Amino acid sequence: MRVEVARHAGICYGVERALKLAEEAAESGAPVRTLGPLIHNPQAVQALRDKGVEVAASLEDASEGTLVIRSHGVSPAIIAAAGEKGLDVVDATCPFVRKAHEAAEVLVAEGYTLVIVGEPDHPEVEGIVAHAGGAALVVEDVADLPATLGTRRVGVVVQTTQSAERLAEIVEALLPRCTDLRVINTICSATAKRQEAAHEL
Amino acid sequence: MRVEVARHAGICYGVERALKLAEEAAESGAPVRTLGPLIHNPQAVQALRDKGVEVAASLEDASEGTLVIRSHGVSPAIIAAAGEKGLDVVDATCPFVRKAHEAAEVLVAEGYTLVIVGEPDHPEVEGIVAHAGGAALVVEDVADLPATLGTRRVGVVVQTTQSAERLAEIVEALLPRCTDLRVINTICSATAKRQEAAHEL
Repeated sequence: MRVEVARHAGICYGVERALKLAEEAAESGAPVRTLGPLIHNPQAVQALRDKGVEVAASLEDASEGTLVIRSHGVSPAIIAAAGEKGLDVVDATCPFVRKAHEAAEVLVAEGYTLVIVGEPDHPEVEGIVAHAGGAALVVEDVADLPATLGTRRVGVVVQTTQSAERLAEIVEALLPRCTDLRVINTICSATAKRQEAAHEL
Repeated sequence: MRVEVARHAGICYGVERALKLAEEAAESGAPVRTLGPLIHNPQAVQALRDKGVEVAASLEDASEGTLVIRSHGVSPAIIAAAGEKGLDVVDATCPFVRKAHEAAEVLVAEGYTLVIVGEPDHPEVEGIVAHAGGAALVVEDVADLPATLGTRRVGVVVQTTQSAERLAEIVEALLPRCTDLRVINTICSATAKRQEAAHEL
């Protein structure tokens, strides 16, 4: 078996940045917790623990010190609640995820019905929904689109790690049902490059 | 040979409205000219002539009385010039074409680079381009898209009589090249119904 590694692989920018921010926070010596694991990799999570960075499963698990918000982002309510608990919040939300938050906010403010292309239960998508004020339709697939949209003015944002193909399929299905369709393509550049690199293999 | 007539065929709403407005204008007895023929049908144009409605090939051919702007619409400059010549302008621009003018104006005002899906030499498209202040890229086909757009913020409007399939192809090609793609689907309902009716045959 030959293992080929794509030109763009490994830890993405947002996660790398979150790991760095957590390590920097630990250097102060105060208790540091991340709200959920920063990375899907038990060895890396253990390495952080060795540096004094624990994982909090929820806000209840963190009562003092620093709370690191991971690259997925969270709802504004969680940041606010952490502040109210007196925690020192280090918001390591990935800048690409933040763009998706902002795009969702803009589309809702401009009166578009919001469609988020992504996994409904993914923390990133939950964060985008929260930033949109909760009023969003999350679709992973064309089949998830309801029979009637109830509007012909639809705005679309995308979970940063979704594929361009998936987005295109959903936009194609929405197009004949809209008179004003605005797509803010929030797929992150790391995802786009990985997809290109995978296609190259 | 069997001739089947689609459920939605014949003179569209915008042309019917323009014919009616021209006939009403002729009832006053003053000279009435239409700026170009109102309809692609020599018999119908002759029938109008019998009622006193002549065809002006250009603004120079009309020096007095009423000038009827046909359903295709024209640039705002032509309406202004006709007013300055002292002509009584009856603007029979189709309401669906007017929506395309307004959509183009909005997209340009909001900083989108404008793409018009349509025939570059069609009078309707010339009118939309003029309403957009002249800054628009007219594409009839995916192949007409330039290699580099020079922007990732693109707004799309459509000649009212284009097909939904053509629009979808161009949107699909634009999607991966844009971070903010806004499509105002200005295909008119008569066109959409005709396309559906033709598919039914």
